[in-house]
Amino acid sequence: MSFFDALGARIDRIDSVLSVGLDPDPARLPPSVRDTDLPRWAFNRRIIDATHEYAAVYKPNAAFYEDPDGWRALRETMAYADGKGVPVLLDAKRGDIGNTARQYADLLDFADAITVNPYLGGDSLQPFLSKAEKGVFVLCRTSNAGGADIQDQELADGRTIYEHVADLAAGWNEHENVGLVVGATAPEELESLREWVPDLPFLVPGVGAQGGDVEAAVTAGLADGVGLVNSSRGIIFAAEEQDEWERAAGVAAKRLRDRLNEFRGDD
Amino acid sequence: MSFFDALGARIDRIDSVLSVGLDPDPARLPPSVRDTDLPRWAFNRRIIDATHEYAAVYKPNAAFYEDPDGWRALRETMAYADGKGVPVLLDAKRGDIGNTARQYADLLDFADAITVNPYLGGDSLQPFLSKAEKGVFVLCRTSNAGGADIQDQELADGRTIYEHVADLAAGWNEHENVGLVVGATAPEELESLREWVPDLPFLVPGVGAQGGDVEAAVTAGLADGVGLVNSSRGIIFAAEEQDEWERAAGVAAKRLRDRLNEFRGDD
Repeated sequence: MSFFDALGARIDRIDSVLSVGLDPDPARLPPSVRDTDLPRWAFNRRIIDATHEYAAVYKPNAAFYEDPDGWRALRETMAYADGKGVPVLLDAKRGDIGNTARQYADLLDFADAITVNPYLGGDSLQPFLSKAEKGVFVLCRTSNAGGADIQDQELADGRTIYEHVADLAAGWNEHENVGLVVGATAPEELESLREWVPDLPFLVPGVGAQGGDVEAAVTAGLADGVGLVNSSRGIIFAAEEQDEWERAAGVAAKRLRDRLNEFRGDD
Repeated sequence: MSFFDALGARIDRIDSVLSVGLDPDPARLPPSVRDTDLPRWAFNRRIIDATHEYAAVYKPNAAFYEDPDGWRALRETMAYADGKGVPVLLDAKRGDIGNTARQYADLLDFADAITVNPYLGGDSLQPFLSKAEKGVFVLCRTSNAGGADIQDQELADGRTIYEHVADLAAGWNEHENVGLVVGATAPEELESLREWVPDLPFLVPGVGAQGGDVEAAVTAGLADGVGLVNSSRGIIFAAEEQDEWERAAGVAAKRLRDRLNEFRGDD
């Protein structure tokens, strides 16, 4: 089954478009996991236990795993999420050329979908795109202020760069496995992009710690009911330093899932 | 000492602007290293032994190390290069936002310089740029054909996106630690970019397996004598499957070093 078909089925089954970001910042891990062999894995496992009923996907950001133990923790985390029936979207934002791009695409051996950076162009993404059963989310308009430095630049033909990227992504969608990353902190761009590419599902980050627009994230993020709205720190660190941090994460996930559902409508 | 000062001193001392790419594709490793605990590390160590007299830097591409053993092999490789006095430029092409960007910037704890992707804008690169003693090479005009998809787009003000990125990078150069990645396969862009930003050193990939223009790589790549021209597969796999592959790598490195020097002139 293709990634977006599987995602759509899961969204229907658990009634949730929530992506739970697994960004286990070592400096913020609770004391109860710090002395384990792999603290990030111990933390993620307990977060998954507490939140999996509300998670349409888990989205580990590769930045938090870039060391020998980190990659072990990430592999264990991805396998555990898979065991719970939750797809994994690896937020890696990779992009490279030729034989290096092919190496990066092997990351999809362990994940169901990935985020990629379009700056190096279509051939750099082909090794990801050609895996027809996997999802590929292309960075388009990101949630940070500096996203404007390049993405908002106006081309000679009147389009912005992010609109150009959306057009390219629509052209790369031969296997119907392409989505876009569009931040909730730019709700106007989010809404205009939904009209620009009606068929591409969005991954919308930025509704939690970054303070983005939840309503726009849901109403513009979904394409035919399929899409994802992510929160990372707002869920996994909902009750830092407290004894019941897993329970707090579960409560935060359920609360955001319910809030997102207020705007989902009937599709 | 800053990265570019250290690089300039090394270029003078060993009379070389050669960057040796350490891309140990597991499928191409010689039989003699395949049964070791960490084949990529065993391979890299012997490549470093054979080439370090000609290497201004070593440039491992992170794509070849993205698994638990890979990160162990990468750490060992970087430490070994450091022990030989050769700076390490980690070709990671990272770019992310906020707390994730800060995590990625920790990669510089183990390397002297890094490549980054500018698509997410200046704030996403700040955690790298603010490490004043480290080098930051910003992807500008890459060596692949698809680089044109975004990088060659013409803005409303007449500049291309890659010229805009070069302007941004010049503005990010507060600590004089910024360089650009400009492929040798687009010699005209390479030469026009040298005039566009006269002071930024370039890392020029694409002269080996990709068939780029060696003369343009050297004459346009250097700023005041400082810059790097990279070859990866053309050196490390110069004699695949043969017994004397280390020696072949050393010969290939020396030969390319000498060829680059033909175009270096007096500065």
